[in-house]
Amino acid sequence: MSTTHTGKIDIIKAAASKINEVDFENLSFGSVFTDHLLECDFINGEWQKPVIKPYAPFLLDPSARVFHYGQAIFEGMKAYKDESDDIWLFRPDENFKRFNNSAVRMAMPEVPEDVFMNGLNELLRLDEAWIKKGKGNTLYIRPFLIATGQGVIANPSDDYKFMVILSPAKSYYSGEVKVLIAEHFSRAANGGIGAAKAAGNYAAQFYPTSLANAAGFQQVIWTDDATHTKLEEAGTMNVFFRINDTLYTAPTSERILDGITRKSLIDMAKKEGIAVEVRPVLVSELVEASKNGTLKEIFGAGTAAVVNPIIGFSYKEVYYELPKIENSYASQLKDKLTNIQHKLAEDTFGWTVKV
Amino acid sequence: MSTTHTGKIDIIKAAASKINEVDFENLSFGSVFTDHLLECDFINGEWQKPVIKPYAPFLLDPSARVFHYGQAIFEGMKAYKDESDDIWLFRPDENFKRFNNSAVRMAMPEVPEDVFMNGLNELLRLDEAWIKKGKGNTLYIRPFLIATGQGVIANPSDDYKFMVILSPAKSYYSGEVKVLIAEHFSRAANGGIGAAKAAGNYAAQFYPTSLANAAGFQQVIWTDDATHTKLEEAGTMNVFFRINDTLYTAPTSERILDGITRKSLIDMAKKEGIAVEVRPVLVSELVEASKNGTLKEIFGAGTAAVVNPIIGFSYKEVYYELPKIENSYASQLKDKLTNIQHKLAEDTFGWTVKV
Repeated sequence: MSTTHTGKIDIIKAAASKINEVDFENLSFGSVFTDHLLECDFINGEWQKPVIKPYAPFLLDPSARVFHYGQAIFEGMKAYKDESDDIWLFRPDENFKRFNNSAVRMAMPEVPEDVFMNGLNELLRLDEAWIKKGKGNTLYIRPFLIATGQGVIANPSDDYKFMVILSPAKSYYSGEVKVLIAEHFSRAANGGIGAAKAAGNYAAQFYPTSLANAAGFQQVIWTDDATHTKLEEAGTMNVFFRINDTLYTAPTSERILDGITRKSLIDMAKKEGIAVEVRPVLVSELVEASKNGTLKEIFGAGTAAVVNPIIGFSYKEVYYELPKIENSYASQLKDKLTNIQHKLAEDTFGWTVKV
Repeated sequence: MSTTHTGKIDIIKAAASKINEVDFENLSFGSVFTDHLLECDFINGEWQKPVIKPYAPFLLDPSARVFHYGQAIFEGMKAYKDESDDIWLFRPDENFKRFNNSAVRMAMPEVPEDVFMNGLNELLRLDEAWIKKGKGNTLYIRPFLIATGQGVIANPSDDYKFMVILSPAKSYYSGEVKVLIAEHFSRAANGGIGAAKAAGNYAAQFYPTSLANAAGFQQVIWTDDATHTKLEEAGTMNVFFRINDTLYTAPTSERILDGITRKSLIDMAKKEGIAVEVRPVLVSELVEASKNGTLKEIFGAGTAAVVNPIIGFSYKEVYYELPKIENSYASQLKDKLTNIQHKLAEDTFGWTVKV
């Protein structure tokens, strides 16, 4: 291992790369990691010097707060390589802002911009061989922050660890997705943490999702917990509905994540002349639109999957199948967005940022 | 270190005890741990052989699911030593049952009874010198289960680690406790995980509690997230209200933890001839009772604090002070319960179990 000291960051290089062991054509999402990671500790009220070092397990005390009280947040981002071997990020400022919004909600320290952004850029440059060219090839970026302070008392931790790990990816979901509309379970409370990318929000969905899986559905569309009448998110994604030629999606709120793919799709759709209405969408509207033939599409939107078309939904034990549509909004918007991300189309929005 | 192999459990003893470094008269809750811990891994669908070994940090992969998706649950229990040096647990079967109920809700494997109970008993016997005699001295027990499987994909982990760590304790809360009744924030959703001892439930409370702290209140009394009209829990405890000579507490539900101290207090109060009503209690009732002088007491109930009297509450920026009462229900019930736990009074309920 060679070590580089710069003013801002220490870099400890791996002795050898694992890259030749990886089959880039057969990647299982989120399971393979690059040679290095970024780490920065928060101790005694201060951020320490960040370090890039070989990806490896690390030691934690059994009483670390993250194990007992779930103080943990993350982001999901992607890097892309264009035909000139330049590396690009998509709206990274939005991820950085949301990361620190999540930190505040979970009583964790905000990560300084230079630690997050410069650290990430250095890491991407060092592991750039892991970013493959060509549409569909991406490097999934996972920044996360965990409470490392010791002690089993339900108070915010004094110490934290910020890390960024990188995972080469193809696509997140595959196959046809049928969803179950939640009639009992829910993912977020009013005045809760649904809008934060808090670790605990995700584990809470696993059991209801496993019940849906057992019934033959890949995901759950979450509804508001008080009345289960309003459609909120699909699995870990925001959700869009096309009724006639208008796209509908719920407004962001304390219960609904302010998705970056969501807002990018809204802006793109408007620019394409597609009518978009951001307002609460009722389950009853969806059922009615399906019955009268005006429901054309449902799709999820998120960083991992980008756009994930849904072929049907179940509500109160009735299954509603969606029509098969040529040139769907889902496919049009996904194509346009991934072209911008991969620098195959002009980025008139100014969303892509060169590393 | 000496290693013992038995059929059921491996025991690796610490080379030396840390016990002489500990000031048992000045313990900060949950900050000091005994010489050993219990560990049992779940790998490839099977629980491995449990091991008792020296308390020490352990290695985890940066992509471990517990960091990213919050699959983590815990319990809080206590051990007591009587005047004959016998060690006692209080209703451990209830903790074991609730632990596995939490596991199911968080899509985690249930821990086998022999791993949990026999493992705990062996651990307590080995570290018995850490349990001090005398009322007020306890050994706080923290069983927990975390997702150790690797991969940043929002699915349940394949691998888990169960651990039990022990911390000698005096009392949890000190000083007078004023509470703020939640008007905006909340701790649990209908159809959510409020009834599980899931790690993520606790971090979610830190920020609202820090706002309450800054306003001069030690805890928040949580209300239902939909209407904020029903009183649910106080901080990390169940909550009781005494109006005239009747005790009121909310029924357990998906939003409210089925507290073992809570249900023990209900049984004890009934036996003492105190009227107890388990029903939703409205904020408006509390305010009204305070105004007309019938509100006598509010107290929290939980394993760590046992009974925690509250001296006043704030709602809509009005502070309501409680009367100072001699021989309060809180002090009577706390005294009786801790006497049972410490084997200073007859346990007519059959709650105490010898290790």
